[in-house]
Amino acid sequence: MNIEMIRAAAKRLDGHARRTPILSSPFLDEIAGRRVLVKAECLQHTGSFKFRGGWAAMSSLSGDQLKTGVIAYSSGNHAQGVALAAREHGAPAVIIMPSNAPTVKIANTRALGAEVVLYDRGRESREKIGDGLSRERGLTLIKPYDEPEVIAGQGTCGLEIAADAGVEEAEVLVCCGGGGLTGGIALALAAEAPKMRVRPCEPEGFDDVTRSLATGQHEQNVSETGSICDAILTQSPGEITFPILKKHCGSGIVVTEDECLRAMGLAFERLRIVVEPGGAAALAGALFHGSEIEGDTVIAVATGGNVDRAIFSRALETLA
Amino acid sequence: MNIEMIRAAAKRLDGHARRTPILSSPFLDEIAGRRVLVKAECLQHTGSFKFRGGWAAMSSLSGDQLKTGVIAYSSGNHAQGVALAAREHGAPAVIIMPSNAPTVKIANTRALGAEVVLYDRGRESREKIGDGLSRERGLTLIKPYDEPEVIAGQGTCGLEIAADAGVEEAEVLVCCGGGGLTGGIALALAAEAPKMRVRPCEPEGFDDVTRSLATGQHEQNVSETGSICDAILTQSPGEITFPILKKHCGSGIVVTEDECLRAMGLAFERLRIVVEPGGAAALAGALFHGSEIEGDTVIAVATGGNVDRAIFSRALETLA
Repeated sequence: MNIEMIRAAAKRLDGHARRTPILSSPFLDEIAGRRVLVKAECLQHTGSFKFRGGWAAMSSLSGDQLKTGVIAYSSGNHAQGVALAAREHGAPAVIIMPSNAPTVKIANTRALGAEVVLYDRGRESREKIGDGLSRERGLTLIKPYDEPEVIAGQGTCGLEIAADAGVEEAEVLVCCGGGGLTGGIALALAAEAPKMRVRPCEPEGFDDVTRSLATGQHEQNVSETGSICDAILTQSPGEITFPILKKHCGSGIVVTEDECLRAMGLAFERLRIVVEPGGAAALAGALFHGSEIEGDTVIAVATGGNVDRAIFSRALETLA
Repeated sequence: MNIEMIRAAAKRLDGHARRTPILSSPFLDEIAGRRVLVKAECLQHTGSFKFRGGWAAMSSLSGDQLKTGVIAYSSGNHAQGVALAAREHGAPAVIIMPSNAPTVKIANTRALGAEVVLYDRGRESREKIGDGLSRERGLTLIKPYDEPEVIAGQGTCGLEIAADAGVEEAEVLVCCGGGGLTGGIALALAAEAPKMRVRPCEPEGFDDVTRSLATGQHEQNVSETGSICDAILTQSPGEITFPILKKHCGSGIVVTEDECLRAMGLAFERLRIVVEPGGAAALAGALFHGSEIEGDTVIAVATGGNVDRAIFSRALETLA
């Protein structure tokens, strides 16, 4: 895993992934007490940064691998990113999704042409199902984060932050599940914007990365369900991603569900973007955990925007 | 009014206005039966294209004019655009707003440092109030659309469409009130992308531009209130804008309020952007009036995203 892989991925993604805008609002600056820049990855194709990793992985496969097809497991955003990238590469895709994933994510993945296999998040192992199907049909597994080409793809978001933010020094808050995006951005910034420092953001009760960074070893979450932040409920940091996080990131920031909903409401009102709960963790950190942040500028990555309207309505209620 | 004024405005706006992204979704293409590109001006500073015209006008004033201050009348988006541009130029701003404008627009305009004067949209003339205050205090009036520098500023949106759309030929649907944006884009495209054709989009009952284009003379709306599309309820096309529209635009497209709400819902779900009712008229035209549109590609300008959460909730309900 190195910066050259990220630069190579950026070349392959050019013209395919969107260069998402960096947004801001004087109203958010006032709440945070510092300048807040929001990298709006919810505007990426399929509504999250995952399209970057999906495309990077797909575009590194051989013609034979593409013809036989790919398999992925995902709570929804990696699913959609891989499904669209596979379709655009002409590759069949099987996606293993938890049966309690947001219905919009399941429906979208199917509509993008993928075969969806549902499993029970509390009782079954998606890795086991994935390995089985992968062997059976000869499919290439595209892991959600512990996969170098996927991390390289997500890292292209960091290259854009370094080039587009207009500042040299900042804390960069990233919503963190398994650490693919967080690690990729951290690697990109270490090379391109060394005065920026990445801070992983996680929801309360699912702060495995924050605790792992504190102890220096792989800490586990008790559960992988039970939060509206479905996109970032990973049990433990990845084998490949954790060493990157340890080397390059500052300490984690833990936010509440309520703070995520309020951040979603403010993103609606002040930035006119739709952010899902797990995609709002970084903005929640930027807005409501200022005492844990250093410097004049904070950059928050709004990682995804695939949210059911019922949950979005809860976010709107926080504006009352 | 000519293309050189628009190019000059683009230079003055560079680094101040946002170059808003052009978004798309395979799901929207499927609904429309053709490729749909959405120019997301709701992501512009202050949440609408109006910041472009505000900045263009403000940056053309003398130091003395800036020092004395400016005045504008607006249902809300021009208000915010002028207020922020004035603040960034260090100029005092008085904004005359209808008392029934969305509360978020009134509150935002005040928060951006402007003095807000409310009037009764059904009974009072904003022009008369504006002229009075303007004379009394020596303020420079920044008209919302019948003002060459404002039209030039809005036209910069058209330069970006021509440069960024990735297609040469398209119908370009624009939400149309007084015609400042529609005219500015039409002028820009006539010079930079002559195979693109602008189509003004209006809500039912407030289709003065559509009827004026059909008869060739200034037609009036019966009322300036009574639609959720508050941003584009102008009584009649402007003196400066109408000749531009007549020369460069195709026929108008008239959409219903319900179609605007459905377009807002789909923009939420498929593009992850927040669009207000008047800002969704063009997307509604693109999605639901396909038989009135020609060609393989339609570009819809999502002109603004300043919407109260109650109305946004109605848009979310259309997704059920």
